[in-house]
Amino acid sequence: MKLIIAVVQDKDSNRLSKHLVKKGYRATKLASTGGFLKEGNTTFLIGVKDDEINDVLDIIQENCRSREQTVSPVSVMGGNVDSYVPYPIEVEVGGATVFVLQVEQFHQL
Amino acid sequence: MKLIIAVVQDKDSNRLSKHLVKKGYRATKLASTGGFLKEGNTTFLIGVKDDEINDVLDIIQENCRSREQTVSPVSVMGGNVDSYVPYPIEVEVGGATVFVLQVEQFHQL
Amino acid sequence: MKLIIAVVQDKDSNRLSKHLVKKGYRATKLASTGGFLKEGNTTFLIGVKDDEINDVLDIIQENCRSREQTVSPVSVMGGNVDSYVPYPIEVEVGGATVFVLQVEQFHQL
Ligand code: NI
Ligand code: NI
Ligand code: NI
Repeated sequence: MKLIIAVVQDKDSNRLSKHLVKKGYRATKLASTGGFLKEGNTTFLIGVKDDEINDVLDIIQENCRSREQTVSPVSVMGGNVDSYVPYPIEVEVGGATVFVLQVEQFHQL
Repeated sequence: MKLIIAVVQDKDSNRLSKHLVKKGYRATKLASTGGFLKEGNTTFLIGVKDDEINDVLDIIQENCRSREQTVSPVSVMGGNVDSYVPYPIEVEVGGATVFVLQVEQFHQL
Repeated sequence: MKLIIAVVQDKDSNRLSKHLVKKGYRATKLASTGGFLKEGNTTFLIGVKDDEINDVLDIIQENCRSREQTVSPVSVMGGNVDSYVPYPIEVEVGGATVFVLQVEQFHQL
């Protein structure tokens, strides 16, 4: 038995939840901020059997992996006219920080 | 030294806190949602000595264990007239998912 | 690789974050309440290499350690005239509860 602690961006959180449930995994979500990723992230606690680790890591990677996203000028502009970019730009979004811990005892009460 | 991570329903959370404190255990509560249990749960972090594990598991079980609860018609009705049940019904409430982890170092600063 | 779980008072939380970032450590903050410390605390998750543990413990100690703080009469008075103390008093603030856990696998996806 292992405990997977995964810190993911809020924007990937719902999609990850859905794909975990679809495959029969149960997770608890903790509200979290800052640090490993930018502001606005969610920490998942997922209890798994040893032979399920790789499957869950795949699900996290598929739904949260770091990727480029095209952002239109309006989105990056903010209130600052000087930073106006007159063409779409690529920004990095997503990503996950994952810890796998050994579980000594697991109980469902 | 062990770290007990217990995910319990919100409705059992205060009672569990009180009983842990009464027995001299200290816990931190993290707001959490979904997954192991239905929406609205609390994750407890409880640091214990090895010979205190069973006592804390007992306290969790006594205050959070899965049990039937009688719900009156009004409670289950919601806004939907079709689901009206003209007699009290039993629903499952409570339950706890508990992980016990080995602690390498513990510090009180 | 280790996972450091540190429960600190809210009032020390921002200072700890800043000093961790300054030294190149990344942390995730979870909102938490009660128990190990009084109401209003923050739980930090900090992933570190084995030889970084002591440095991070030092940073936590420097920014969160339990200390006396002088409180002026107005602050302790509250609404209750009977508890008025006509001179500054010392109260205990800060403190941290820290667990260090072994990490079996660490992934940055
Ligand atoms: Ni899909
Ligand atoms: Ni009682
Ligand atoms: Ni400083």
